Amino acid sequence: MAQLQRRLAEFAAARNWQQYHTPKNLVAALSVEASELVEIFQWLTPEQSARVMSDPKKAFRVTDEVADVLSYLLQLCEVLDIDPLAALSAKIDRNEERFPAEGT
Amino acid sequence: MAQLQRRLAEFAAARNWQQYHTPKNLVAALSVEASELVEIFQWLTPEQSARVMSDPKKAFRVTDEVADVLSYLLQLCEVLDIDPLAALSAKIDRNEERFPAEGT
Amino acid sequence: MAQLQRRLAEFAAARNWQQYHTPKNLVAALSVEASELVEIFQWLTPEQSARVMSDPKKAFRVTDEVADVLSYLLQLCEVLDIDPLAALSAKIDRNEERFPAEGT
Amino acid sequence: MAQLQRRLAEFAAARNWQQYHTPKNLVAALSVEASELVEIFQWLTPEQSARVMSDPKKAFRVTDEVADVLSYLLQLCEVLDIDPLAALSAKIDRNEERFPAEGT
Repeated sequence: MAQLQRRLAEFAAARNWQQYHTPKNLVAALSVEASELVEIFQWLTPEQSARVMSDPKKAFRVTDEVADVLSYLLQLCEVLDIDPLAALSAKIDRNEERFPAEGT
Repeated sequence: MAQLQRRLAEFAAARNWQQYHTPKNLVAALSVEASELVEIFQWLTPEQSARVMSDPKKAFRVTDEVADVLSYLLQLCEVLDIDPLAALSAKIDRNEERFPAEGT
Repeated sequence: MAQLQRRLAEFAAARNWQQYHTPKNLVAALSVEASELVEIFQWLTPEQSARVMSDPKKAFRVTDEVADVLSYLLQLCEVLDIDPLAALSAKIDRNEERFPAEGT
Repeated sequence: MAQLQRRLAEFAAARNWQQYHTPKNLVAALSVEASELVEIFQWLTPEQSARVMSDPKKAFRVTDEVADVLSYLLQLCEVLDIDPLAALSAKIDRNEERFPAEGT
């Protein structure tokens, strides 16, 4: 993941795109990519949505949009100096307290 | 990342939440979390957005929402059997062909 | 609708909020409110979603978010001098050509 | 507005699309269209965003996406039996209490 973050930073720097990568713009781009994922599923039934990867064209689109979401998330984390894995680990810890599992 | 994915799967299983985790629902939840990131930035100027982490309360909110986005992205990848790092690596390869850097 | 647009403009002006109402910020706010609608429905089955108005609390939330979406849409139209009803009428005309109904 | 709502309902009925128009699907589609508006503005500065309508191509796209957002909002209101203008009027009333203007 650190290596991908470095490739993304170099990619943006080589195209002089860093000027556009304010946190405000990156979160907008992230939400746009997340919506492009939603668009693939918006008219599907729950059952159809569970089978989406059996259609090669849709499987490619979904994988491509997942990459776009991760791309902007990592670029945002780079710009804001956030460690996404540490952030998620801390969040799971908090959720385990907030939503105790039955029987624990 | 694989370890966090396992913790997320166990967390959902222990609460019997897997029934809600259709791909369609997970992408909706992902886009909702991405919008909660946007909400933090929506009225800020570009300059204010660049300083967002210097406010401890906002820094916490941003980090928390980043965790939520990553959480749903990883859960979606788990359900659809997508490798997010491989997906991103392939996407950067394609983008390097699609948007050649000047001077290369 | 014109009267509501006037009330919204006066509301913003009386609070000196017009400075925040760039088109860029208004579309971000619009998308955030649309996601708050999605949040209400994200874990519901299609059948549960069809019955959402029979729960008074959820009915209030849905109606409230519908108002927020319309509020930012009208404020965006005001700032950009767009007539939303004319825009929609023209769009339906185009869609009728693009997606001919069977039997016509 | 009531007339546009009727045209939208007839348009969907003539194509047998009503089966897809659960509230859950309509709010997803609404949020996708709102994000398509965001996409137009995502890399613009506030100043560029204020001049967006002076570019005829962008003006067309913005107007078209405004129509799409309004289209799904009205279809959602039809399905849920919500009066969007009454909802917004009530919301402005509440906001006037919640955010008193200075000097009033």
